[in-house]
Amino acid sequence: MNPQKKNPLELRPIGVIRSKIKERSKAPKQGSEGAPDVWLEIYPFTAPALDGLAVGDELIVLTWLHRAHRDTLKVHPRSDPKRRLTGVFATRSPDRPNPIGLHQVTVRKISKNRLRIGPLEAIDGTPVIDIKPVLCEIQKR
Amino acid sequence: MNPQKKNPLELRPIGVIRSKIKERSKAPKQGSEGAPDVWLEIYPFTAPALDGLAVGDELIVLTWLHRAHRDTLKVHPRSDPKRRLTGVFATRSPDRPNPIGLHQVTVRKISKNRLRIGPLEAIDGTPVIDIKPVLCEIQKR
Repeated sequence: MNPQKKNPLELRPIGVIRSKIKERSKAPKQGSEGAPDVWLEIYPFTAPALDGLAVGDELIVLTWLHRAHRDTLKVHPRSDPKRRLTGVFATRSPDRPNPIGLHQVTVRKISKNRLRIGPLEAIDGTPVIDIKPVLCEIQKR
Repeated sequence: MNPQKKNPLELRPIGVIRSKIKERSKAPKQGSEGAPDVWLEIYPFTAPALDGLAVGDELIVLTWLHRAHRDTLKVHPRSDPKRRLTGVFATRSPDRPNPIGLHQVTVRKISKNRLRIGPLEAIDGTPVIDIKPVLCEIQKR
């Protein structure tokens, strides 16, 4: 039995991606595959949590891939029909039970509650749910 | 305005951590700081998504740190009162608006719907919300 069934876990978006990529079909599969820089707009309620971030930091941004299919359990990796059907937990497919995207980015600019970051492949309007420093590069702060 | 406010994002736990660590106060701050191996019990509805995982794989496990404080926006890094208050997005504190834990682990054993993985610092009973392969080591599958 799933003990959380009666007490669902609810995410609070902390911000949103503003990107020139408007459709999922136009997005690269990974940030390293030609994705652009984007703006991350942080909602005011959580702005104090940015204190300490600086230009040049390497971050992991967690997004909610709101156009993903949550009932998909197997996919052809890289959408290549010649590759055998594989469990989504062995792939980075956006289609999965909890469609959370992990994106390693560099901070290019900080302008009040907006961070210019990249490269990032998520589409315009994608909710952001967390920001974490990359551990190995920041001495466990 | 937060456009998601009327349409909250709900996570479906895909499994649960079974660990000898029972309390948050006994957990190391990072997996690399002496954390044990644990069992990850996958719920039956999502078991097909494991297909393709193998012993020795390096994975990123995403957990929901259910004992964390979601209203905390600043912390003293590493719980060290001598370090200045810092925004949680510049730290790996479990206390943050969406308390998602990221854990890089190795698969030690697979037994039907249970994965033996480690090291992992989350406490017994922690919900698991996603599993992803580490990209750089698996050639983008």
